[in-house]
Amino acid sequence: MTKEFDTIKKYFRRADLRKDVILGSGDDAAIVRVPTGQNLVMTIDTMVVGRHFFASIAADDLAYRGVAISLSDVAAMGGLPTWLLATLSIEQIDDEWMQSFADGLYSCIDSFNVSLIGGDLIQGPLAMTTQVTGFVPEGKALRRDTAQPGDLIYVSGNLGAAALAIELTMEQRELSLTDEQLYAVEQRFLRPQPQVALGQALLEIASSAIDISDGLAQDLGHILTASGVGARVDVEAVPTHEVLNEIEERSRYELALSGGDDYELCFTVSPDQLDALAQLKIDVPIHCIGQIEHELGLRFFLSNQEPFELSSTGFEHFSES
Amino acid sequence: MTKEFDTIKKYFRRADLRKDVILGSGDDAAIVRVPTGQNLVMTIDTMVVGRHFFASIAADDLAYRGVAISLSDVAAMGGLPTWLLATLSIEQIDDEWMQSFADGLYSCIDSFNVSLIGGDLIQGPLAMTTQVTGFVPEGKALRRDTAQPGDLIYVSGNLGAAALAIELTMEQRELSLTDEQLYAVEQRFLRPQPQVALGQALLEIASSAIDISDGLAQDLGHILTASGVGARVDVEAVPTHEVLNEIEERSRYELALSGGDDYELCFTVSPDQLDALAQLKIDVPIHCIGQIEHELGLRFFLSNQEPFELSSTGFEHFSES
Repeated sequence: MTKEFDTIKKYFRRADLRKDVILGSGDDAAIVRVPTGQNLVMTIDTMVVGRHFFASIAADDLAYRGVAISLSDVAAMGGLPTWLLATLSIEQIDDEWMQSFADGLYSCIDSFNVSLIGGDLIQGPLAMTTQVTGFVPEGKALRRDTAQPGDLIYVSGNLGAAALAIELTMEQRELSLTDEQLYAVEQRFLRPQPQVALGQALLEIASSAIDISDGLAQDLGHILTASGVGARVDVEAVPTHEVLNEIEERSRYELALSGGDDYELCFTVSPDQLDALAQLKIDVPIHCIGQIEHELGLRFFLSNQEPFELSSTGFEHFSES
Repeated sequence: MTKEFDTIKKYFRRADLRKDVILGSGDDAAIVRVPTGQNLVMTIDTMVVGRHFFASIAADDLAYRGVAISLSDVAAMGGLPTWLLATLSIEQIDDEWMQSFADGLYSCIDSFNVSLIGGDLIQGPLAMTTQVTGFVPEGKALRRDTAQPGDLIYVSGNLGAAALAIELTMEQRELSLTDEQLYAVEQRFLRPQPQVALGQALLEIASSAIDISDGLAQDLGHILTASGVGARVDVEAVPTHEVLNEIEERSRYELALSGGDDYELCFTVSPDQLDALAQLKIDVPIHCIGQIEHELGLRFFLSNQEPFELSSTGFEHFSES
């Protein structure tokens, strides 16, 4: 047996898999069963050290974050996540690190009843790929190309804390925070909470949805472009993490609108679904931040109706050399 | 729009997707439909520069090889491959390189009627992850834990050429070959041919199967371990690429038994299925190389019944630093 197979067997092969997993890790491929009447939603993401996370990241946080990001994509489609395939590229295998990585991975997937069904362990620069599949009732998935003029725009939870965590780590901003506040902010980056229950609750209610990974401005922009519509957003209605109250207004708005990595949902609701939305039993707060319009483009306003111009449009996936 | 999204849109978004793809690339996740009565087989692989391919690899060969390797896993399960998710990590986006990469990727998946339904483009060290899903009739998938004593052992095609290509590139071996021979050998490494049709043909016939990625000795070893059996193999019955005739016997056998990357199938067949096997209409030659036995372990013999000891057991996924 090679070190790869030994390690996979030791840390990543569990017996307690979902009932729809006929065969998990250990063969050329996993074998799974899909219930009748369900479509599948399938997403894949790769995170690379130095680009998507700092080299100093703890192994358990890396694993948690990787899985959570893909779960969030499934949540944004209204899907029930079921199976994870994952690959890890790492320079050398260290037992303590690997145990921590496995702990972080399972703590995330266990809380969503997702089974790890296969993967690959590769020698190379630290990087992780996560592929999550989920069920969604036939024809019901939430998409980003189905928003209509007149629909109201909502976001879940609050925004800006994950971007603030990055700025603090990179020492791009100084802020006097208590240890508790600092921990809370860092956790928002390291352990994003995919809005799986909300996504499923919105299946018959929302007209479109997306998760906020690259910043609200950019991600809402994807809904607008795909749907061929525009929007106006009240900047002061965008919910921000309470720690952002320590920051002067303009910077706070920038963080909330351009800062990515929060993995909250942004979704639109037709006015005739507002009663249904109000009756939803959900644990996460949601806030109406604006409205879809015929006129193309995304327009931000302050509460006094003055336009607000963003200086950054969110995460750039490729920096210029 | 960012450079990532522009590039994906330009090279990797096509309209002619399989009918079971409800929504391809461009949303948080793809949406697909699974026919009743089919299980899914799902595999994922990551290839990293310097470990799984040389930095000098052509973009189209990299893409082809990445996809072919995952298709081969589906083939080894007897699956009909349907959908590809892929991520590419690359330092900078170059249009000519990206066009070549897309050409290689589509030339592979188009020939197997597989649709690219999503992916991720990341700035980082050159690496590629491929996730392929396939259909297999409920309960019929070929596995590696189901070989029985008495079953005959087969391999498809011929072995050793891909490993020879690596040795030649790394200048670990000198061999006087014509340009045509050299090209043929290199293609075996760069453009492996997944045995998809053979895998499906074997669904009702083979008792177990695996694809040969890490070398026959190691991969047949996986069947033996998983099935709790042993085997004897006639080294001289193992089919080798004709170019290997230029190499002295011992080295030739080593290449055929330990050399990986050929992506042929190794499978076992119960004696009562031999008639069915003989009647199969398949394009690829298959050769019987040995037999499954009760006694654990893998034993190689020459035709004169003398034992043959291998000096290497195939690809080591993690080299020691």
